[in-house]
Amino acid sequence: MTTSIRKEATTISNTVDRQVINNVNHYHIRRIHRLRLQDVRERTGLYYIEGLRFVSQAIARGVSIETLVVSRPLLKHPYAQRLIHQQQRIGTLVLEVTPAVLHSLSLVDDPQGIGAVVRQRWEPLQHIKVGEELCWIAHQFVRLPGNLGSILRTSEAVGGAGVILLDDTTDPYDPAVVRATMGAIFAQRFVRTNVAEFARWKQQHECMLVGTSPQATQDYHSTVYRRPTILLMGEERKGLTADLQALCDTMVRIPMVGQSDSLNLAIATSLLLYEVFNQRRMQVI
Amino acid sequence: MTTSIRKEATTISNTVDRQVINNVNHYHIRRIHRLRLQDVRERTGLYYIEGLRFVSQAIARGVSIETLVVSRPLLKHPYAQRLIHQQQRIGTLVLEVTPAVLHSLSLVDDPQGIGAVVRQRWEPLQHIKVGEELCWIAHQFVRLPGNLGSILRTSEAVGGAGVILLDDTTDPYDPAVVRATMGAIFAQRFVRTNVAEFARWKQQHECMLVGTSPQATQDYHSTVYRRPTILLMGEERKGLTADLQALCDTMVRIPMVGQSDSLNLAIATSLLLYEVFNQRRMQVI
Repeated sequence: MTTSIRKEATTISNTVDRQVINNVNHYHIRRIHRLRLQDVRERTGLYYIEGLRFVSQAIARGVSIETLVVSRPLLKHPYAQRLIHQQQRIGTLVLEVTPAVLHSLSLVDDPQGIGAVVRQRWEPLQHIKVGEELCWIAHQFVRLPGNLGSILRTSEAVGGAGVILLDDTTDPYDPAVVRATMGAIFAQRFVRTNVAEFARWKQQHECMLVGTSPQATQDYHSTVYRRPTILLMGEERKGLTADLQALCDTMVRIPMVGQSDSLNLAIATSLLLYEVFNQRRMQVI
Repeated sequence: MTTSIRKEATTISNTVDRQVINNVNHYHIRRIHRLRLQDVRERTGLYYIEGLRFVSQAIARGVSIETLVVSRPLLKHPYAQRLIHQQQRIGTLVLEVTPAVLHSLSLVDDPQGIGAVVRQRWEPLQHIKVGEELCWIAHQFVRLPGNLGSILRTSEAVGGAGVILLDDTTDPYDPAVVRATMGAIFAQRFVRTNVAEFARWKQQHECMLVGTSPQATQDYHSTVYRRPTILLMGEERKGLTADLQALCDTMVRIPMVGQSDSLNLAIATSLLLYEVFNQRRMQVI
């Protein structure tokens, strides 16, 4: 292991005149590694993204890059070189690391030689003026990161604004969420609030709050979604609590004919998002 | 560890007069443990399910129970006792094990004191007569078990018949797939075939084969799905291969307005399933 790291470091120092970090215990590397922990992400307001697709999408969407992590022997795409130069020009800290060090930070199979520490974006609920966008989604709690990631990916695909989180723990910047969004995360807006604040905000803002429940009588496909729409989704197992159902202007159900009494949360949310989207683009509403 | 196992075993022997397996290396336990491996599942035609919900749904759907695994100290629901008695009466092998042994077999947090080795169900393509059911789904390859599980769950919810797999490796009986179906797996039918055989079968059977591609011009929501419908889905990253697209009667796309060029596979499949289901129940078709 030590030999291979040393060999890689030598190769790089022949081509570029920079200090290459070859130690996984280096201060910067340890700091990035700790971003796997939710409380560290929360305290610092940062998260780590991997791969050229994610890094370039983040930059294109104006996400603030705090540190760029680069392993030149792994960079294949010429666009990556341009991206690094651009970031160096605007003063972004660029860490050059050995492939072994980059892999030590990685949760994916192929980090493609590049990663970045980027700043989380949150907006206070008071700043949210619902209006032109297709809709917002409000979540009480999302248990599985893959579900939240898929929901964000669908929301971006239909022109949804983003997600209002009504709990303290659901973390859209969890690496598993970020990965499942396939980059859509950078085009979504995030609000963290609580049920009481959300209830007050709703009283002050004209909108159609739509909840889902298997017990609702109204069919999701026969409901007309007036703009601005907010889709309110419960957690995977328990669904929407009674106090949140009481807040809704309409409760809808997604019909089922099998033995099952529920769908996967990401599927149910996506069916509603596409229903709103289809109505809008077919000019039903 | 040894002490706690011994203690559990003693407690049980006071209440029931049966041999309780307290050794994770017991022949039967090793045999069940090996069902985590795909090649063992394939060779034996068996798989392992956990929890009262899954075991009772399997029985209700006529799935053949090969072995029932029970840890009485963990059984809470009175229905579980009745289920075990019924299985003993019809001659099913019932293994009584300690909680530690049951947990050693488990991939879930709370196996609820019960698990079962059950027989996989497969049908040859030649036996499939498409007709009364809502539709079938044909998959070229599914990379993520969670995706296949969610697809089966949605398919069951809308009255879909099941899945035709066109590759050798996608395994619907993978524990992660089974878990994500929430029990819907027992109500779905499975066929394994290959592209050539599928192409021949299609020539002999009247059906509408619908493929998806971001390049298709036809909108999935404006397409009329004639019965019997087969939805053909490509794999997560590459989509449908050209030879499979050529087989399709219609290619549809799911419109998107964001930067993304694709949706999660389970989401895309579920949107199509619900589109067919909504047209059918709204008597469009």
